[in-house]
Amino acid sequence: MSTDDADDLIFKALSHRIRRRMLDVLKSGAATTGTLCTAFPELDRCTVMQHLGVLEEAGLVVAERRGRERWNHLDALPVHAIHERWIGPYAAYAASMLSRLKREVELSE
Amino acid sequence: MSTDDADDLIFKALSHRIRRRMLDVLKSGAATTGTLCTAFPELDRCTVMQHLGVLEEAGLVVAERRGRERWNHLDALPVHAIHERWIGPYAAYAASMLSRLKREVELSE
Repeated sequence: MSTDDADDLIFKALSHRIRRRMLDVLKSGAATTGTLCTAFPELDRCTVMQHLGVLEEAGLVVAERRGRERWNHLDALPVHAIHERWIGPYAAYAASMLSRLKREVELSE
Repeated sequence: MSTDDADDLIFKALSHRIRRRMLDVLKSGAATTGTLCTAFPELDRCTVMQHLGVLEEAGLVVAERRGRERWNHLDALPVHAIHERWIGPYAAYAASMLSRLKREVELSE
């Protein structure tokens, strides 16, 4: 698979707000599919598993089987790669400062 | 506009490989629309401007008029926000190390 194809999968996966919220949940720690179903009561189990499949295909989620449970882990490497592509290690500090400044300006408005 | 709506625009903009390549070009410095047309000879000027419009709407490109020229600047703040959302400042170092390790493993394969 080319890098473009891999990136297509990543941005397709991130383009859905439910999938972005699933990553938010997984950021605080791995979760079973059952826990994710509880976190998204508006979705049926089948839909949750479809979204997890898209995230897994993109490499944003790694699934681990433990007995009858499936534990879903966030893999942040693709997110790191996005950052490296357009910011890179040298501009990271500047971006961080700008981001903080923007937040402070917004809070003071 | 809600954060979800703003993020939809960002990931929609990043979901197209041509737009990602445009950001690659702009990473090395601001460029006029004419320069971008030269960098993407397979696209007509109208298509280049449509892609720039999508990037601008998402806040990934800031346009600046200088006389008859339009200079396009990369705004990396949304990219930084993606990184902060799923990695955050504390895990950035670990992600950086993992990313380097992955690259070294791939190179040695």
